[in-house]
Amino acid sequence: MASDVRLKEQLPRLTERIVATYTPDDAINHLGHCALPSYEAIIAILLDIKDILYPGYRRKVGLHAGNIAYHVGSTIDSLHDQLTTQIARALRHEDRVRNKHNDCESETDYEAKGQTMAIELLERIPALRKTLATDVQAAYEGDPACQTTDEVVFCYPGIEAITVYRIAHELVRLDVPFIPRMMTEWAHKQTGIDIHPGATIGEYFFIDHGTGVVVGETCEIGDHVKLYQGVTLGALSFKTDDSGELIRGQKRHPTIEDGVVVYANATILGGRTVVGHDSVIGSSVWITRSVSPNTTVVLEQPSLRVRGGASVNSVDEHANYQI
Amino acid sequence: MASDVRLKEQLPRLTERIVATYTPDDAINHLGHCALPSYEAIIAILLDIKDILYPGYRRKVGLHAGNIAYHVGSTIDSLHDQLTTQIARALRHEDRVRNKHNDCESETDYEAKGQTMAIELLERIPALRKTLATDVQAAYEGDPACQTTDEVVFCYPGIEAITVYRIAHELVRLDVPFIPRMMTEWAHKQTGIDIHPGATIGEYFFIDHGTGVVVGETCEIGDHVKLYQGVTLGALSFKTDDSGELIRGQKRHPTIEDGVVVYANATILGGRTVVGHDSVIGSSVWITRSVSPNTTVVLEQPSLRVRGGASVNSVDEHANYQI
Amino acid sequence: MASDVRLKEQLPRLTERIVATYTPDDAINHLGHCALPSYEAIIAILLDIKDILYPGYRRKVGLHAGNIAYHVGSTIDSLHDQLTTQIARALRHEDRVRNKHNDCESETDYEAKGQTMAIELLERIPALRKTLATDVQAAYEGDPACQTTDEVVFCYPGIEAITVYRIAHELVRLDVPFIPRMMTEWAHKQTGIDIHPGATIGEYFFIDHGTGVVVGETCEIGDHVKLYQGVTLGALSFKTDDSGELIRGQKRHPTIEDGVVVYANATILGGRTVVGHDSVIGSSVWITRSVSPNTTVVLEQPSLRVRGGASVNSVDEHANYQI
Repeated sequence: MASDVRLKEQLPRLTERIVATYTPDDAINHLGHCALPSYEAIIAILLDIKDILYPGYRRKVGLHAGNIAYHVGSTIDSLHDQLTTQIARALRHEDRVRNKHNDCESETDYEAKGQTMAIELLERIPALRKTLATDVQAAYEGDPACQTTDEVVFCYPGIEAITVYRIAHELVRLDVPFIPRMMTEWAHKQTGIDIHPGATIGEYFFIDHGTGVVVGETCEIGDHVKLYQGVTLGALSFKTDDSGELIRGQKRHPTIEDGVVVYANATILGGRTVVGHDSVIGSSVWITRSVSPNTTVVLEQPSLRVRGGASVNSVDEHANYQI
Repeated sequence: MASDVRLKEQLPRLTERIVATYTPDDAINHLGHCALPSYEAIIAILLDIKDILYPGYRRKVGLHAGNIAYHVGSTIDSLHDQLTTQIARALRHEDRVRNKHNDCESETDYEAKGQTMAIELLERIPALRKTLATDVQAAYEGDPACQTTDEVVFCYPGIEAITVYRIAHELVRLDVPFIPRMMTEWAHKQTGIDIHPGATIGEYFFIDHGTGVVVGETCEIGDHVKLYQGVTLGALSFKTDDSGELIRGQKRHPTIEDGVVVYANATILGGRTVVGHDSVIGSSVWITRSVSPNTTVVLEQPSLRVRGGASVNSVDEHANYQI
Repeated sequence: MASDVRLKEQLPRLTERIVATYTPDDAINHLGHCALPSYEAIIAILLDIKDILYPGYRRKVGLHAGNIAYHVGSTIDSLHDQLTTQIARALRHEDRVRNKHNDCESETDYEAKGQTMAIELLERIPALRKTLATDVQAAYEGDPACQTTDEVVFCYPGIEAITVYRIAHELVRLDVPFIPRMMTEWAHKQTGIDIHPGATIGEYFFIDHGTGVVVGETCEIGDHVKLYQGVTLGALSFKTDDSGELIRGQKRHPTIEDGVVVYANATILGGRTVVGHDSVIGSSVWITRSVSPNTTVVLEQPSLRVRGGASVNSVDEHANYQI
């Protein structure tokens, strides 16, 4: 009743076969290259930044006016070092990919560039706190099931996703490669909300429930916008160049003006689609054209087939649902 | 090739700037207040309760008739202490918010109240096991891909979400604030299923796949109800009072009677919407009005635009899909 | 201000009441049985296999031609032992369930069977790498927001879900019970993408965003297929046998031929539904009938009710959306 030791003797040959597939033209190994940013380090950085954005809620308890400066000071110091290292790795990786070389050496001092970007990000924390306070307020005002703003900060997935997006978006604005997407994909995993870090989003932004929300890279979203679960702000189709390659970087996703509400599972597609200010897009609506300001768009009474009564043989009849 | 130490000299000034934003009227810091319930402690409590609800499946192996009483006894003892502490924190926090004071001292003995509530929850474990056994049975009977009930307990996300909901709902019934929502948001993160702890749900409840399901705070769900992924049981719109504030606590979400099946991505909205017993709501249907018992509601053959054949120049024609 | 020790005296009686519910006919305890596969061990196995499939990306940095063979060799050795143990547990559990006995003893040498299956899985790693390289390529080519294939390997949830599915599917092909579903449910938790390990999926498979995707057990998917978030490839309804029990194992889910694209939140149902090669299924479309090759199916201009202008009293008018 035990495994056969002799069978294990074929394992070294298997190892050889596997290693033989790690060829230089193999796109899915990263051997002999400079280190990529560390996934674990990026998560640790996010948790530290959140500790400073929302002090006293999660990891540290017992913080008060008398000790908070020490706590923030030491966290900022450590964030400086961590961010510098990880941003430098991301810059070096991008250099290698862009210039198709395989060398970790470079004339550029990526640590110095990384440090500048790290400090620039940290300097934006007071402004980030200001914006995030508007998001928390919007959640409290928009959800009748919510009792206190503490609840929002403490356990609302929408705020989790928006917080990580806002941090990552600052890194996009600083031209930091690779790391912003790592951050928002981590938030996506936590919350089911997928906001591309390249999107532009105004103040007082609220996502309720959130699972399945997708906000594309080139979306422009105004102030006081509210999205429910399953909303897609996506692309219509992709243009390719003469050689058949996708054209990257064009505006492919909609513009949502101030004060718009988009209900559950609605889909809004296209780079030239504009939803005008203070409009309401109803649940499950699917649109690819612009909507004027102050407009409510809901599904017409849906054509439903209703087979009613206890008998399965009864005649189908059309329901007359009023919405 | 290293970061510049002199640049770090600006960090203390940055720390000062950040700390200066932690003002008393800042809604997103929790400094100098009594401790909130600990997120980590709440998760640990949930895992311990699940160990007792479903003994032998996950964390402890080798449990049998001869040692199970010791295991349960010591877990219950530790749960008593942990629950007492965390519930006391939640009660004290609610007192502070409700009475707008900033003081951890209070005439109320929150530890004593917390202990009573903790023991009351633990006393309900045998009844919870009875109900959860019906949910597991419903999953086994409802999913042709399922081989054994063990599989359901072991890895079905629906059961994970329902288990946490049922625990959290007992805490709602005991008037424990804050913690129930923390619990269901943790389950939401694990499973993509967002059940508000205030909802009322009968026996033999099954959610298949589950990602994107939302069950609102004031839903009433009967026995033998089955939901698929992406189903929303939500609110139509929110009433505000004279000062424009949301009115909280009204019935805003639908009633789903016994034996109803709701297929993937259907949306049912409104506090006065009742889906009568043994009805079937088809995939992607969107309704805001009541449905009689024994009724099947599916989308009418959808109006589809089909551009067919190998030629892109062919004329559009309307498909005649029969469902 | 402390909990009352005397109240704790009722806890032993509560423990007795709970333990009394762990009866032999209670379907939700696993006491006195042979150990089930360990959830933690299965996750550790997945992370180790991913380290070998995509060397150098995540957990180990600094791998290069000179040390990679040692790393792979020792990981394969440990995987052999872990897989053997866990597969043996799964086989023994299945034996117990199938033959309704309660005994860990058996005439079958499950360790030996487990070892054979473990080695067979490991032998398939080179072939798995080949297929997964096509999936990574498909993601890069299909997403205009993607800069490098490294990004895909590093943080795309679609690749995470597909990788775990492909490993689990090999175990299904080897007739390993229980473990494949544990694996894909773990991936479901990470990504919101629920692919049943029994599904058959060709090369160059891409899932973008992915939250809410469900791929059923008996789906057959060709090469170069692309799915967006919220797509369901599901069953229409379930057949029951004369005694009312579900018939398990029939083809209940659709066939998707080569080169098909299915946009966000589309639902395709039924075991006899075939979507012909190179067809496009538009966002939010819901179909239960077959579609010819080279066909584009989109929602007809949706019947929307638009209430426009600043005045709430304005007349409803039908929008004429062109898609």
